[in-house]
Amino acid sequence: MTQRTVFFVSDGTGITAETFGNSILAQFPFKPRHIRRPFIDSTEKALQVAQEINETGVREGQRPIAFATLVNAEVLEVFKRHCQARVLDMISSFIAPLEDEFGVTSNHRVGRFSNVAQSREYHDRIEAINFALAHDDGQSARHLAEADVILLGVSRSGKTPTSLYLAMQHGIKAANYPLIPEDFERRKLPTALVPLKRKCFGLTIDPERLASIRNERRPGSKYAELLNCRYEVNEAEAMMKREGIAWLSSTHKSIEEIATTILSDIRPDRLIY
Amino acid sequence: MTQRTVFFVSDGTGITAETFGNSILAQFPFKPRHIRRPFIDSTEKALQVAQEINETGVREGQRPIAFATLVNAEVLEVFKRHCQARVLDMISSFIAPLEDEFGVTSNHRVGRFSNVAQSREYHDRIEAINFALAHDDGQSARHLAEADVILLGVSRSGKTPTSLYLAMQHGIKAANYPLIPEDFERRKLPTALVPLKRKCFGLTIDPERLASIRNERRPGSKYAELLNCRYEVNEAEAMMKREGIAWLSSTHKSIEEIATTILSDIRPDRLIY
Repeated sequence: MTQRTVFFVSDGTGITAETFGNSILAQFPFKPRHIRRPFIDSTEKALQVAQEINETGVREGQRPIAFATLVNAEVLEVFKRHCQARVLDMISSFIAPLEDEFGVTSNHRVGRFSNVAQSREYHDRIEAINFALAHDDGQSARHLAEADVILLGVSRSGKTPTSLYLAMQHGIKAANYPLIPEDFERRKLPTALVPLKRKCFGLTIDPERLASIRNERRPGSKYAELLNCRYEVNEAEAMMKREGIAWLSSTHKSIEEIATTILSDIRPDRLIY
Repeated sequence: MTQRTVFFVSDGTGITAETFGNSILAQFPFKPRHIRRPFIDSTEKALQVAQEINETGVREGQRPIAFATLVNAEVLEVFKRHCQARVLDMISSFIAPLEDEFGVTSNHRVGRFSNVAQSREYHDRIEAINFALAHDDGQSARHLAEADVILLGVSRSGKTPTSLYLAMQHGIKAANYPLIPEDFERRKLPTALVPLKRKCFGLTIDPERLASIRNERRPGSKYAELLNCRYEVNEAEAMMKREGIAWLSSTHKSIEEIATTILSDIRPDRLIY
């Protein structure tokens, strides 16, 4: 099939619309062009983006798709009336059954993130990001006890991006701590972690994959050698087994999947609200 | 109304389901309890989670809500048949009109993130996170020219979380660079930024808010004093005006909103695909 364009039209950032739309589109065997049109929060802007979509359709000779997350009924109405795309209305489809279920009408508030910057939850997310940065790679043992989770593993096993993701998406305070050759020689957990063992979660990785990642950083180094990677990974896994620390392999997992698995295992109280 | 529980049931991480569900639920004037059940990718697991949901409903005397993103038709069928919650099926609702529109059937592939860890796009996201960390707070001018965007602003104006978000969500290489009193005395942009001005985007912040954020970090310091914050913010804004650098205020915006605005302004090529 020829080029087809998908628009994500939102009164907020459009990130939710696009993320969700992507998982729907992933069910189809081709990758259409994406265009995001955020902050469409007035009838004027709705009209303008409808025209842009219509022009795209004419130019491409194919009707575009438009995922819409427009909460305001009037804005949505104007958009739908003027837009000749196949419009998938992501809000109304679910609002109606919920209004029925809850027995109340919704408030049609625009933008998921409106005023979010002032909220406690947002403040906690930003604090969690700062915490992850301050406690990246075992940088500081200060306040380590405040961590919700401490990731450990060999260098380049995926600890840093996972910690940042846990902070950013979930507001989880995630520290991370490297397991280094000295730890393997001592055959002991880093001292700072001993009293915090129940918060620890290990990441491991396939040695071949690790060698390839390390070689991108420091080509030809002993650090990146496959033999050395095998040694470190074996020792790290043996240590986690010995210490009874849960772990998973990051080799075939995205940071989203790793984070979700960790949360299912650790189940921090703050996530049950 | 009494306690009501909302379940997010997904064959993947459930993050998409929960993010989208949250923006729907934000339209209602109460906050139900959330429970996420990820990786529900077999009929056995579907049955198990349906039972858990039913028990919750009995215990609470209210029918739960279940947002479901289950791609596999059989798993979805078993879940729907056994679950007594109000099930909001987020996939099928949109797949059917798209199959019709595209004139093909979808492949019902489970999990948006399956094998994503091996993809080019994922690799770029991880690289972008590493780049953001290496170029946080003006740490390094090496490879600065590789940045897609360089955020600048006074200390604690929101540069670091925004850079990390741009990297993690969009795979954008975002460096960030502080504007410090020395720059204001010189009345010049930091030298490293001069040749890269067209990639620069400024963040500013309300001085009162800045003082309050800085006071959390270094209570009672000159750095955190309102008078000093006013001076720095004024000078930073004057400099951005003088240099013709676009900027926005982070005071009332979430990192998602800031990132979206920056992307609309900078429009990096790599996002048009």
